[in-house]
Amino acid sequence: MVRTERVRVQTAGFADIVDITPEVADAVRRAGLNHGIVTVFVAGSTAGVTTIEHEDGLLRDLQEAFERIAPSDRPYHHDLRWGDGNGFSHVRASLLGPSLTVPVENGRLTLGTWQQIVLVDFDNRSRRRELVIQLMGE
Amino acid sequence: MVRTERVRVQTAGFADIVDITPEVADAVRRAGLNHGIVTVFVAGSTAGVTTIEHEDGLLRDLQEAFERIAPSDRPYHHDLRWGDGNGFSHVRASLLGPSLTVPVENGRLTLGTWQQIVLVDFDNRSRRRELVIQLMGE
Amino acid sequence: MVRTERVRVQTAGFADIVDITPEVADAVRRAGLNHGIVTVFVAGSTAGVTTIEHEDGLLRDLQEAFERIAPSDRPYHHDLRWGDGNGFSHVRASLLGPSLTVPVENGRLTLGTWQQIVLVDFDNRSRRRELVIQLMGE
Repeated sequence: MVRTERVRVQTAGFADIVDITPEVADAVRRAGLNHGIVTVFVAGSTAGVTTIEHEDGLLRDLQEAFERIAPSDRPYHHDLRWGDGNGFSHVRASLLGPSLTVPVENGRLTLGTWQQIVLVDFDNRSRRRELVIQLMGE
Repeated sequence: MVRTERVRVQTAGFADIVDITPEVADAVRRAGLNHGIVTVFVAGSTAGVTTIEHEDGLLRDLQEAFERIAPSDRPYHHDLRWGDGNGFSHVRASLLGPSLTVPVENGRLTLGTWQQIVLVDFDNRSRRRELVIQLMGE
Repeated sequence: MVRTERVRVQTAGFADIVDITPEVADAVRRAGLNHGIVTVFVAGSTAGVTTIEHEDGLLRDLQEAFERIAPSDRPYHHDLRWGDGNGFSHVRASLLGPSLTVPVENGRLTLGTWQQIVLVDFDNRSRRRELVIQLMGE
């Protein structure tokens, strides 16, 4: 079985970290997937997907780490050419990566207790993002 | 065919980098997987999975890079709230990511000669980790 | 259906960022994959795979970010032992990761308009890389 769903997620941008575990778990349930994988993919080049313990302190910690890795206030060649002002967003997104694969066992995501699937939107404005959630297995 | 295995791996924590290629290759063999993918996923929010040439010098180099990216001695909001002292572990784990997908061809992992699959345990103590190894294909 | 292809890609090394979207899209077409996933995997421990808007300014921005994260001019334990001089390449590759999974829907990669799949070759010389492109689905 292969099933592909599209889910829209509203974000605030600026490294907003949105817990999308409920959306992914719902997709698993709707598809009746018992054993297989879920691929979560964000279309676009200024956002990424990973897991984190979704707790306010850590969200700020991760945002500050990205600010050190690709600071929002340094000059980027992308901005000099295109004037988008979101060169830092693109760099962060490429580093984090746009996809995550999570095994499903007995109808459940094999996440840890304090581990949530998150969309990180690095863009410099709020966005309505399109997530691809694809289920494969039996 | 979909087959899910759980493997326990003992780590020393503190960015311990454990070669789990034998465990993954064994799972491929046991399942008789000829063509397909292996997804390696670590449940938990303070560890990650990647590949590296598993050689002592490089292990130290990667550990030092993580020390620069998310230093263990700076203050983290997570620690201020929860007192776990492992804010740096969580940040590093989210950056590296909890899953890796490796194609299998003719019964073999398509790794390079000097490329091993590793579990990186960023936590601030030794852990007994649960790895999910999922095989899908024929 | 599972189908595995090998594609050779010539790179210049030194964080050369090569757009491999045409190669991946061709593989999808040749396999007649309608719904499923494509796994792009680079064999070797000094290269990685991600997505980016493949535009000259951003390519330089990402290269400069890697130069900050794992500078090419600092000493690496790997180089002290093995004299390869590419310790920075290995560290960067482990951070970025060797694989990317992209869902396919109605015969098309679910990429954003400005999002390309890229191979990043961190090695300190030009290389002829072997990419594994594996298609699974129906």
